[in-house]
Order: sequence, then C-alpha cells, then structure tokens
Amino acid sequence: MAGLAWKWPRTRLPVGASALGVFVLCWLYIFPVYRLPDEKEIVQGVLMQQGKAWRRNHTAVAVFRKLLEDCCDPGQLFAMTKQNSPMGKNLWFDGEFLYSFTIDNTTYSLFPQATPLQLPLKKCSVVGNGGILKKSGCGKQIDQADFVMRCNLPPLSREYSKDVGLKTQLVTANPSIIQKRFQNLLWSRKAFVDSVKVYNHSYIYMPAFSMKTGTGPSLRVYYTLKDFGAKQAVLFANPNFLRDIGKFWKNKGIHAKRLSTGLFLVSAALGLCEEVTIYGFWPFSVDLHGKFISHHYYDNVLPDSGFHAMPEEFLQLWFLHKSGVLRMQLEQ
Amino acid sequence: MAGLAWKWPRTRLPVGASALGVFVLCWLYIFPVYRLPDEKEIVQGVLMQQGKAWRRNHTAVAVFRKLLEDCCDPGQLFAMTKQNSPMGKNLWFDGEFLYSFTIDNTTYSLFPQATPLQLPLKKCSVVGNGGILKKSGCGKQIDQADFVMRCNLPPLSREYSKDVGLKTQLVTANPSIIQKRFQNLLWSRKAFVDSVKVYNHSYIYMPAFSMKTGTGPSLRVYYTLKDFGAKQAVLFANPNFLRDIGKFWKNKGIHAKRLSTGLFLVSAALGLCEEVTIYGFWPFSVDLHGKFISHHYYDNVLPDSGFHAMPEEFLQLWFLHKSGVLRMQLEQ
Repeated sequence: MAGLAWKWPRTRLPVGASALGVFVLCWLYIFPVYRLPDEKEIVQGVLMQQGKAWRRNHTAVAVFRKLLEDCCDPGQLFAMTKQNSPMGKNLWFDGEFLYSFTIDNTTYSLFPQATPLQLPLKKCSVVGNGGILKKSGCGKQIDQADFVMRCNLPPLSREYSKDVGLKTQLVTANPSIIQKRFQNLLWSRKAFVDSVKVYNHSYIYMPAFSMKTGTGPSLRVYYTLKDFGAKQAVLFANPNFLRDIGKFWKNKGIHAKRLSTGLFLVSAALGLCEEVTIYGFWPFSVDLHGKFISHHYYDNVLPDSGFHAMPEEFLQLWFLHKSGVLRMQLEQ
Repeated sequence: MAGLAWKWPRTRLPVGASALGVFVLCWLYIFPVYRLPDEKEIVQGVLMQQGKAWRRNHTAVAVFRKLLEDCCDPGQLFAMTKQNSPMGKNLWFDGEFLYSFTIDNTTYSLFPQATPLQLPLKKCSVVGNGGILKKSGCGKQIDQADFVMRCNLPPLSREYSKDVGLKTQLVTANPSIIQKRFQNLLWSRKAFVDSVKVYNHSYIYMPAFSMKTGTGPSLRVYYTLKDFGAKQAVLFANPNFLRDIGKFWKNKGIHAKRLSTGLFLVSAALGLCEEVTIYGFWPFSVDLHGKFISHHYYDNVLPDSGFHAMPEEFLQLWFLHKSGVLRMQLEQ
C-alpha cells in the first residue's frame, strides 16, 4: 500500500539538532544568561543599607500577601489536611517527574481536619541556619516572636541558644535527614525521639510527598512521635503548595532545580504571619565585616552545588527587606 | 581440535529420565512410602494408654538429653550469643538454600554474652496451641512449672487463662506473625508493644536467621522492645541449632519441609530442663472422646498443608511420653 510505503525525506541532522535545541532551552531556563552580582558586590550593597532605619511597610506587606494568596493560598494549602486532601484525591509529587499518588484511608487518617495553626500568626521569626548567626546574640530577639520557625532540625543545644534561641513552634525536616541521621527509622527510633525533645511543643513539617522515597520515612516520623506520646506532631507539606511556591519564585527570576527549604518557609511565613523577621539567611562565606564565617552556625558543610540558587534567593529576600515586607536581621 | 569435537552419543531420554529420577528420590525422601497410622488408630492407641499411671524415667531422660547434647548442644547453641557467634563468623540461614550472612558489629551487639537462662531449668511446661486445651482447665498446672514456654505469641486473655495459664518465661515469634499482625513494624509499633505486655518478663525467641526475609522484622522486634523499655527481651534462635534439631528428627523418621515450632521448642526444653511436661500438642480434629475440636485453642485456622508433618511429630512425642522422657498432658 502506497500510504505505508511513504517515508520522511532522510537527513542526518534533525534528531540531534532538535535534541540539542531542547537541551539549550532547558539549560537557559535553569541557568539564564544574565550576570548575577558577585558576593563582594552583594555585601557592599547590604553594607550601604545597614545604617538606615528599617520600617515595616504595611501596604507592601499586604500587597505581597495578596500575591502569595493568589498563587499559593498558604492559609489553606500550607499543610495536608482532611479538608484540602480528601480521600481518593490524586496528587502529584512536586519533586518528581510523572509520579502521582492517591490519598487512601491510611494516609487520610494522618491529616488534621483543617490547619491547626491559629491564623493569622502575629510576630514570626524564621530562622535560617547561616553561619552569620554564630556569636550574633540574636537568641533573645528570635524567641520574643509569637511563633518561631526553624529549618531542617537544627541543633539548639546550650552552646547555641544565646545566638539562635530555643523557642520553636515549627521545624522542617527533610526525609534525607531522617535517612542519614536516623537510618530511616527502620531500626531503633529512640535516638530520634530524644533528639526532637528540644523542639518542645512544635510541629515537624515534612515534605512527605515531594519525592517518592521520602513518603515512607516521613510517615515513620509521624508514627514514631505518636507511639512515644511525644510533644511534637507532624504536619505534612502539601506538594501543590510547594509546587506553586516554586513557580511563584521561578516567575520572579529564581532559577534552580529546587527552592531551598528556607525560601519555602519564609514564603509560608509571609502568607501566615502579620510580621516576619528572618535570621540566619546569609549564604556567603564572609560576614559584613569581611570576616570568614562557616556555612551553618553549627558546621561548615556546604550544600550540593547546582541544586539551590542561594545568592539569587538572598537577593529576593534582600529586596523584600528593603521594601519593608520583612525584616532581615544580619547583625546583633 | 579433536577434543572439542567429541560429543556424548545423542539420545532423547536421559535428561528427562534423570530429572524424573532425582524428583522421585526427593519425593520419597520427603514423603516416604510407609503407612502412617491414621487419626482414628492414633486416638485409639492413646486411649489404650490413658488409664495407666505415668512415671518419669530418669534414665530415659538422661539418655535422650545425651542424644540431644551430642547432636545439637542446646545449652550452648539454643540462642545466638556473643560466645557462639563471634564477630566475623559466617552462618547459613537454616531455612534457605545457599544464603549465608556474616556477624557484623551491629548484629553482634544484639546478642547476650552467653545464654541468659539459668541452666539447667527445673520443671518446664511447654505449651502448644492445640484446640484440645480449650476447656481443659490446665492453666493452673501449666503455671506451676518453674519455666513456661509458649509458641507463636498466643493469646493469653482472661477467657483462656483457666485453660492455658498466664505465666510465660519464653515465647516464640515467627517473623511471619510480625509481618501479618504488625506490618513488619515498619509503621506504628505501639500495638505490638502493647500486645506482648501479657508475656510480662519473658524472652521472645525469634528465628531471625532462618529465612533472609525474617531478619529485618526480627531485628525490629529487638529495637522496638528496647526503645520502649519493655519487660520482654529478644533471644535470636541460632540457625545452626535449628538445622541440627531438624536433622536429628529427620534421622528419626520425620519427613517434612520443616519441623513445627512446637517440636523445636520441646526439643530445646528436653535439652534445657530437668522435667518437661507438654500441653496442647494434639494435631487431630477430634479429642479423646471423639468430639470435634478446633485446630488452635483460640481459632480454627489450619496450617499450610504439606509444610509440617504434625501426625508424625505427634507420634514421636507420644513415644517420648510412653518412654517416660516427657509427660504429655492431654486431659485435665
């Protein structure tokens, strides 16, 4: 049959060329061709601003909250709840390609009816883990907030509390930490339960549905805390919220494989709190006086390169600081 | 080359015929061609004996213990200990073909230095789970022993205690139970901890190294009890002991894929205790008065057919009873 015999004219270029084209476009999307100010320039810019008095701009706060509400509805979608994730609902992992899951009886039973936070929260401290917090003496100020949020189960032992405080109402925990530090809770679980006692009555906020491999460890955190009658409870991050926040910042020019936990948390705080002050968000190797500092306040382990876009994220947060949307605390 | 060109003369039979031959030999090994007395005959035989007074034959007890010591050394090898399983030792799973494991740092730390049992144990009750225990009123007699051993985490709730007692010093738990009833302890573990409270201060004896898939759940039982500060502690069955006991009974004519937990436990008791009385070892569907009874005292779930050889095992135990090596209690 003539139809079956018909073929495209044969060339040697198109397949490779199209693949290359797609690759270049993706590359440009993730690593665009524009010049980001270097570390020195950023530090200079921050220094120039340091003397000036900072005032919260309530209009700017309201405008930014409206933007967040329109894109991501943090009040409703921050965590998985029975309300926003009914049984049988299909959701996509936000950190995977092409994998979804369906809320079944067991998973549904782990969600609170609605968000358990008393919204709006008043004064919030969001504490990043930057080395700039070391010897900052910010602990007291951090703890004066009504609601303190921290990232990735940071240490809060006596040696740090003067600088980072102790109060915690919400702390994020990536499943990778559960894997590395607690063997995915497959064996003994007591070390984990003991290690989170420092967070007292707080929510452990887990992206259980970002990557397929993270679901098991996250559910195990839930069961472990419940089994031990711990003071902490798990809130599962809603993958739709994380995806929407990711898109929001991508549209504002942040190009990275994934936003940092810190920026997710600041974004949530801006949607949930009336006043936000952030601490320890400083991804550079020198402080404002040019002194070398460690990457975290508790160690100097650098993140995987090329996964997050920390300087870009910093510039966005710095812009919010200058606009009066949030206060970024960089010195005592 | 001439050597390479040489071939076996070609026929169409040998491969199939040899395979069939091997199959028949294996079949005969597992299901030999001898006639086992049927249920009625066994019950009749037991009834004939019932009137007669039973006396422990101390010579027979000593002879049998010597046999067990020579083959299997229960006192030393009953459980995994630091003494019999040093670091780096290679052991074979007794329920698998061709799989071994090496004692590493982590596994080694789970073993007691030596057997924690005060040997020899004096009077032991070994309690099978046969339906014949129902309405037997044997509970008091069972609990009068110094050391009570039970099989497969049986229920001991108030409705059963009059018949089966409550005292327990050692209870076996197959990993399959942990899988079926407690989801392999991968999620919540509280239900398991609560369910074993009934065994008070006792050892949970687990064949952790019989099948590869059983190791994980068994170790999780260990960690769970430790994490919760439970009164129960795990003893891991030594696969060499289980293999040796299996061979011992195979040589005495028991042909089955695997011995029942009950016979393993009675064998251990005969090696560890001065006096052994066994209860609930009755695998038949009628009692001594011809009345139909359930398979277990708590349910009527039958075992997988063809896996154990219960009537054969019963006959061996009955022979030991008649010889005065152990006492088999079948009625009140």
